Amino acid sequence: MKAYVIQGGFGIDHLIEVNRPVPTPGPGEVLLRMRAVALNSRDLGVIDGFYNPNLTVPLIPVSDGVGEVIAIGEDVSRFQIGDRACGIFTQSWTGGEPTQANWVTTLGSPLDGLLAEYVVLPEEGLIHVPGHLTDEEAATLPCAGVTAWHAIVEEGKVKAGDTVVVQGTGGFSLFALQFAKLQGAKVIVISSSDEKLERANLMGADYGINYKRNTDWDKAILNYTQGRGADHILDLGGASTLNRSISALKVGGQISIVGILSGASVEDFALVPAIMKKARLQAINVGSRAMFENMNLAVEQHNLRPVVDSIFTFDRATEALHHLAEGSYFGKICIVF
Amino acid sequence: MKAYVIQGGFGIDHLIEVNRPVPTPGPGEVLLRMRAVALNSRDLGVIDGFYNPNLTVPLIPVSDGVGEVIAIGEDVSRFQIGDRACGIFTQSWTGGEPTQANWVTTLGSPLDGLLAEYVVLPEEGLIHVPGHLTDEEAATLPCAGVTAWHAIVEEGKVKAGDTVVVQGTGGFSLFALQFAKLQGAKVIVISSSDEKLERANLMGADYGINYKRNTDWDKAILNYTQGRGADHILDLGGASTLNRSISALKVGGQISIVGILSGASVEDFALVPAIMKKARLQAINVGSRAMFENMNLAVEQHNLRPVVDSIFTFDRATEALHHLAEGSYFGKICIVF
Amino acid sequence: MKAYVIQGGFGIDHLIEVNRPVPTPGPGEVLLRMRAVALNSRDLGVIDGFYNPNLTVPLIPVSDGVGEVIAIGEDVSRFQIGDRACGIFTQSWTGGEPTQANWVTTLGSPLDGLLAEYVVLPEEGLIHVPGHLTDEEAATLPCAGVTAWHAIVEEGKVKAGDTVVVQGTGGFSLFALQFAKLQGAKVIVISSSDEKLERANLMGADYGINYKRNTDWDKAILNYTQGRGADHILDLGGASTLNRSISALKVGGQISIVGILSGASVEDFALVPAIMKKARLQAINVGSRAMFENMNLAVEQHNLRPVVDSIFTFDRATEALHHLAEGSYFGKICIVF
Amino acid sequence: MKAYVIQGGFGIDHLIEVNRPVPTPGPGEVLLRMRAVALNSRDLGVIDGFYNPNLTVPLIPVSDGVGEVIAIGEDVSRFQIGDRACGIFTQSWTGGEPTQANWVTTLGSPLDGLLAEYVVLPEEGLIHVPGHLTDEEAATLPCAGVTAWHAIVEEGKVKAGDTVVVQGTGGFSLFALQFAKLQGAKVIVISSSDEKLERANLMGADYGINYKRNTDWDKAILNYTQGRGADHILDLGGASTLNRSISALKVGGQISIVGILSGASVEDFALVPAIMKKARLQAINVGSRAMFENMNLAVEQHNLRPVVDSIFTFDRATEALHHLAEGSYFGKICIVF
Repeated sequence: MKAYVIQGGFGIDHLIEVNRPVPTPGPGEVLLRMRAVALNSRDLGVIDGFYNPNLTVPLIPVSDGVGEVIAIGEDVSRFQIGDRACGIFTQSWTGGEPTQANWVTTLGSPLDGLLAEYVVLPEEGLIHVPGHLTDEEAATLPCAGVTAWHAIVEEGKVKAGDTVVVQGTGGFSLFALQFAKLQGAKVIVISSSDEKLERANLMGADYGINYKRNTDWDKAILNYTQGRGADHILDLGGASTLNRSISALKVGGQISIVGILSGASVEDFALVPAIMKKARLQAINVGSRAMFENMNLAVEQHNLRPVVDSIFTFDRATEALHHLAEGSYFGKICIVF
Repeated sequence: MKAYVIQGGFGIDHLIEVNRPVPTPGPGEVLLRMRAVALNSRDLGVIDGFYNPNLTVPLIPVSDGVGEVIAIGEDVSRFQIGDRACGIFTQSWTGGEPTQANWVTTLGSPLDGLLAEYVVLPEEGLIHVPGHLTDEEAATLPCAGVTAWHAIVEEGKVKAGDTVVVQGTGGFSLFALQFAKLQGAKVIVISSSDEKLERANLMGADYGINYKRNTDWDKAILNYTQGRGADHILDLGGASTLNRSISALKVGGQISIVGILSGASVEDFALVPAIMKKARLQAINVGSRAMFENMNLAVEQHNLRPVVDSIFTFDRATEALHHLAEGSYFGKICIVF
Repeated sequence: MKAYVIQGGFGIDHLIEVNRPVPTPGPGEVLLRMRAVALNSRDLGVIDGFYNPNLTVPLIPVSDGVGEVIAIGEDVSRFQIGDRACGIFTQSWTGGEPTQANWVTTLGSPLDGLLAEYVVLPEEGLIHVPGHLTDEEAATLPCAGVTAWHAIVEEGKVKAGDTVVVQGTGGFSLFALQFAKLQGAKVIVISSSDEKLERANLMGADYGINYKRNTDWDKAILNYTQGRGADHILDLGGASTLNRSISALKVGGQISIVGILSGASVEDFALVPAIMKKARLQAINVGSRAMFENMNLAVEQHNLRPVVDSIFTFDRATEALHHLAEGSYFGKICIVF
Repeated sequence: MKAYVIQGGFGIDHLIEVNRPVPTPGPGEVLLRMRAVALNSRDLGVIDGFYNPNLTVPLIPVSDGVGEVIAIGEDVSRFQIGDRACGIFTQSWTGGEPTQANWVTTLGSPLDGLLAEYVVLPEEGLIHVPGHLTDEEAATLPCAGVTAWHAIVEEGKVKAGDTVVVQGTGGFSLFALQFAKLQGAKVIVISSSDEKLERANLMGADYGINYKRNTDWDKAILNYTQGRGADHILDLGGASTLNRSISALKVGGQISIVGILSGASVEDFALVPAIMKKARLQAINVGSRAMFENMNLAVEQHNLRPVVDSIFTFDRATEALHHLAEGSYFGKICIVF
């Protein structure tokens, strides 16, 4: 079978397409014929060597995808041949609180990922997906969907009447917008592009702020909420946004720390404003299988359609990765087999 | 001014219309010209002597209503003349956990209620109401609305994808249906009337069960949820329903205990099934002003319209109470001034 | 090897000692040479046919025990030969919320229990135990210890200054007393025996109530707390105690429903008092491995010594069960191999 | 009566002792004859103009203290003449979640504080204190005690078996040590002084780290916890400590952000480690009256003795403030009247 591996050098253009035997499922394992994968910024970080410069290679990248079960090992009870299944990002985190040990079982690093025609995974690391989703849509769930669900619903407990702020319009942000609307909240989207804000608006966003024009976006949020501040802010930017997120927060509000798109460290993170807001900063690290199951019930009930920006065929995988690197997408970039 | 009082005997037909001077607001107090009140079963219980046989009379009954501010005492800062304001059911419970002391400050017993043309209340026991509501709609919020919000959102933390069961179609139940839908859940309504189930369906209920025809309504719920059970059940019936509610519950689910319509005690409440479901039974007792404020944000954002069954003029108040006693209403019965 | 089985008839005197081959651990499994088991009322219920009259036999009873690892199957990573390990009551409930599926993996019914010289269990269903405990002490942890920990700490979140009420002085109750004291609370113990109250007092109980003499034990609790009521009540009696537990509760307090010792259903469970207390009734069903791990940290830090009432040798197992049935014990009854 | 005021210039040596009439309690108010106050770093910040450079003067500084009720206004129901009462730091925050409006009712800025012989406060802003405490000990509770209680118990929900890290040995830190020990946790104290570590050890601390000698104190904590990390860290230093606190944290652990002693902003707050720990950073801002009441129950039950470093008479108030500024204290610095 064909697969892409990181080997011999970092960088998208150093990815190599290799031939490998189709793997065989052992006891408790399932063989998937992959149908689609969805790309995350993290995958770029792994491929670029930013995520782990000492990566053990060769490694198949890409954490999120969906496949069709074509063979099962002994003792597999949760899946049958023909089922469609997604991989769970953190393979061993089934429910409850995670541990350090769970972190070494993440797909696409350090475990092999899903950018291969066939993949074997333990059944505990797989989950069924709602039937109304296309393969590309299903492939977007494991990281972007689950992280957003974890932040908005499981930890954030967003409720009707809340004001939620979503930074950006990438895959994670659009899921956050969708889930916050399902929970009955008002959603403010912040972006640098009027066109993306318009599309977010069509998806149900209540208010859009273009931060290129409106650099004091925290004040714009305070205005919109009559000085009260937002109940929940998904902070994706990190370095350049955290202080403003705190400024825009309601007293007692929560900030979900999800990403580092503008930098891995916050220069001069101001503590006094955080204390004056009695802020809760909750770092979110994808989520468990139990969370994924809860999310699936919501996705299914509401016929939710994840937003797919573009679809590339497997042979054009590096093109897809370059498209992700450019940053001009709206929703998820997928690769189909 | 005119007011109705319980005096000299229990029962709707013993209510007396009296004349009293218009009260004057002291420091921290507000004078309301009442516009509408909404009736609760509890008001009947107070009037009938069931709620407190040793009631200190005379007492003005009825806990829920809205009025217009026409005078304010010294030091009042939250209200101005012309504002519309609802009374808060438990006058002194502003936020956080309630205490025994808060319970003696409930309107309509033991404190005087709102079935009077003018009422004085401390500003801490009042709250503004969303502008889009008619007076009758606003009057329904303090007990029915807040209790449902407390159960579904504040304690229940209902989320998208959950299955919520609402028993009955009285004021409280319809608010619970509305709030559960705002939170993205599926809602099953249980009633004895196909006509009411149809109306609930038009309001967004996902499934209706007529318990007269389908006495094993718990099995119907288990069927509907493929054996999983409901995440949240609002138990209104009490005596005749609690065991079935536990049967219909998901493992780890929550039952909000709100009422006693079918009796004040559960004959043979079965504990082993409760343990096998690891059930949480949460008694709900209306709610705080902070909860009312949260609810208002949701009501306002969604232009939610409370369901009003019928409106009676002040002089026909006893007729309104008889209509409530008959039990054939759908939504809230209101009296306007 | 020798084992006891239920076969051919219910009742302690129908237990049969049989000879079976020593089992072999498969992949992911561990072979334990049992050192001690501790008896629970549930074991009597299983043996008597009360728990499940349609029990599939033969069945080895008894859920709780500790053994020494003498062989491990392929892929076992959490245990080594020589380790001491306890079985986890609900074998498959590792963490987070439980499901219906977890309930069919409980030891001593429907799965074979531990009253056998050798036992094989999957490593996911085993846990290390604090070194300072004797074998008998370690054997008491899985059901009595974990249930008490789940109620007092995980769900109850008991804190310093709280007043906790523990009913009875059986194994579970004494663990609850110990954990509540570790959490800094005051503990009231209720018993029918002055001698047991004295022993509980020596273990740190702050107040004892003999309910034979003081039938209105709820009033005694209200007295002791100056009318405030208890923050947390562990209700073990069920049928004859639940209404009084609610009477003795603080507004907003929590009752952990753990047992049914005085009957499986509460005759006339009064709902209005529950609502007036805004009570939370939380059914507790043993606990997960994650909870057991948390408990172990506390047991180890504090050198906690579970209370062992008496120790019987394996050949006198039925005598031990009769001693349990008599009800005159203080702490746990253990069997050593 | 005599009082100290900030007027005409910032700085301890610019404090002026003035004469004012004894204030009179209005309706709902209480007149206290002050007995003792305790100093907080915040008081220095107010006096130095650091806290609010645009402070409205004259202002009586100092937020924490206890007095004797010598007169009560109309309608006061919670206090009688002769009672001892502490001021609540945030006067209007009685319970539940705080709001922006509550923040303008803090004692010692912007409201007048307690460094005066007589003070009038509304009864809602006062609380009784446990009888076993001396006046100096009682005076330490409102800010240091309540903040520590809020962090460790109300938000932190610290439990037996947890490992808690306390930075420093000032008033707040010692209360945190005491409360964490009441909750059954292990406590690691970090300080620059071996002498203070020894005293903390005598108070029950399980382990001490001198960060002058052991600059990699985060690694020392990871060592002590066998790589697991601490469950709860009270971060007092802020600027120079937050990154190390995250490094020392268990996956899923909580950091209480309480202070800014080493600087008001964290240079380069690293987000990736926070995400890898799924850390919760909870800013703590003193606490409500309801929290103070819960704390009092624990303080009373355990005869807890707050640590008083030194006592100065009212005429030597500026000396007391200089002693606070020097930083060589262990516990709270108090002024008695």
